[in-house]
Amino acid sequence: MPRLLSALRRQPVDRPPVWIMRQAGRFLPEYRATREQAGSFVELCRSPRLAAEVTLQPIRRFGLDGAIIFSDILLPLAPLGVHFEFTDGGGPHLAQPLDDPRSWQRLSPPPAWAGTEFVAEALGLVRSSLPEEVAVIGFCGAPWTLACYLVEGRTSRDHAATKAALYAHPAEFRALLDALADAMAAYLGQQVAAGAQAVQVFDSWAGTLSAADYRRHVVPALARLLNAVPTVPRIVYVGGGGHLTPVLAPLACEAVSVDWRCPLAVAAASLPGKAIQGNLDPAVLLSSPGAIRSATAAMLDAAPTVGYVANLGHGILPATPVENVEAFLDVIRGRT
Amino acid sequence: MPRLLSALRRQPVDRPPVWIMRQAGRFLPEYRATREQAGSFVELCRSPRLAAEVTLQPIRRFGLDGAIIFSDILLPLAPLGVHFEFTDGGGPHLAQPLDDPRSWQRLSPPPAWAGTEFVAEALGLVRSSLPEEVAVIGFCGAPWTLACYLVEGRTSRDHAATKAALYAHPAEFRALLDALADAMAAYLGQQVAAGAQAVQVFDSWAGTLSAADYRRHVVPALARLLNAVPTVPRIVYVGGGGHLTPVLAPLACEAVSVDWRCPLAVAAASLPGKAIQGNLDPAVLLSSPGAIRSATAAMLDAAPTVGYVANLGHGILPATPVENVEAFLDVIRGRT
Repeated sequence: MPRLLSALRRQPVDRPPVWIMRQAGRFLPEYRATREQAGSFVELCRSPRLAAEVTLQPIRRFGLDGAIIFSDILLPLAPLGVHFEFTDGGGPHLAQPLDDPRSWQRLSPPPAWAGTEFVAEALGLVRSSLPEEVAVIGFCGAPWTLACYLVEGRTSRDHAATKAALYAHPAEFRALLDALADAMAAYLGQQVAAGAQAVQVFDSWAGTLSAADYRRHVVPALARLLNAVPTVPRIVYVGGGGHLTPVLAPLACEAVSVDWRCPLAVAAASLPGKAIQGNLDPAVLLSSPGAIRSATAAMLDAAPTVGYVANLGHGILPATPVENVEAFLDVIRGRT
Repeated sequence: MPRLLSALRRQPVDRPPVWIMRQAGRFLPEYRATREQAGSFVELCRSPRLAAEVTLQPIRRFGLDGAIIFSDILLPLAPLGVHFEFTDGGGPHLAQPLDDPRSWQRLSPPPAWAGTEFVAEALGLVRSSLPEEVAVIGFCGAPWTLACYLVEGRTSRDHAATKAALYAHPAEFRALLDALADAMAAYLGQQVAAGAQAVQVFDSWAGTLSAADYRRHVVPALARLLNAVPTVPRIVYVGGGGHLTPVLAPLACEAVSVDWRCPLAVAAASLPGKAIQGNLDPAVLLSSPGAIRSATAAMLDAAPTVGYVANLGHGILPATPVENVEAFLDVIRGRT
């Protein structure tokens, strides 16, 4: 079994498996070349051949334990009638943010999931191109994080409009989260059918809510999504969510991915029976190989001995030098 | 003694004192009128008469327990030779960010603190205009948060450049933090001499660091600053800093202000002997009076019985309706 899948199932491994959030991305020169060739970010995502190519690039270069399919969490909202624009540098943008309950009711998922076949096709290409020991990872956005983008219409720092909508219309907001959970369950199902051997649900903005509000308003929809994909290991990523780990304990997922603000030992203690993934600050990879080696060694020292996947605590930054990634990986593979 | 000062010193009070971060600000129509009159945000800050006026406005309207002087944490960097521009809507901007150790060494504090006399003068006007039971609060930015603005040159979401600078040049970065601590100590000393009866140190971006890094790199400079203002109660605000409260326990401050992601009971338990301030999510004040009353009551239920100051967990949002603030205050004053 691929090392990554063993660790996610808390089975013995020879060393911690490792992959890197946003490992297919702008820090790689070969990615930038393919991106250029594709024309735009969305065209790159929507071309199965090119999406597969950039998914494979970091595996060729670094020999990672997992290949996460190249895509964006907002693309599977198109089948619901929501079309984000992606501007270079400016991030995603929605001309008409969905900031009131009536706009949420207009979201209409297709009766049978359709409209993201390009992701499934890319996944198939990736699976057939990789050796067995590299696991293919599918992913989607968590209902809360997707709702943040829908309501704000863009990346936000405080998600105040989203939280205002939640507090003003809690029942309708929870219905929105449930609708997003059902759509993402269908989308992940399609990815699993196409070859995804594990899935990660990105709740990147989980950390903006208190634990009480996250438990009350968000966890039910997250559970609904996770319960619908029982056949592969499920990783839940919570950005800034150190205070949320006790709330995640009852969820049907095999692993929780935390960031540098949540010590790995604290995560493991509050999530009995689950694997832990993370958690180096991506900003460390902007420093020097010496500083990276020492921070990565400290991360491994704090990691649980069973059920651990090495990763960053957030996506790798575009300015990261490739040799700094090598330093990070060398320590995990025990070569320094 | 003013109710606020009693609570900060963990002495008995008839009810929790309350003030609101950014209480003098854009959500108030009378503030917007004075701001218009002043011309620009910086001119408003630099006019003792107008700064005192907007400081007093929320006290007149709401009868709060504390009046925090109207200013900006970046203004006292001007005496060090750093001049931020403030653009409407775009936030602060520094033409030449200080992103390398050589630029940090060029920071030169005045031999005797000078250049912020307008703040001292405004504080004096405020103190002489207020009844005794309203405490006047001075403030400054914490060394880490100020360093974030210096290195990024603007508000950042991830502070990656600042952290990269810290990890690449830890000794030089700590020297920068010490220099900022000394400058802010002089600045707070000036405010105390002018009438500030309590001070708040804003470490708004504390939450971007792990507890280990915060303890190692940031706490020494924060301690240096706090130790220099021993005569009035000191409040340390840590934005997103729920994971940092154990690290703050040894600091010489009377109170720690936390946000909604750090339950008040957890804060109190990890900070023995200190008062706790906070922590309602300002986004709650965008909802409805009913939702606000219930969330505020829940906040009070979770608050310690001794040494508690009611507040938001972050600055009040400009879009907040005034009647929603009334609902928040009514619950704290026991009128609902």
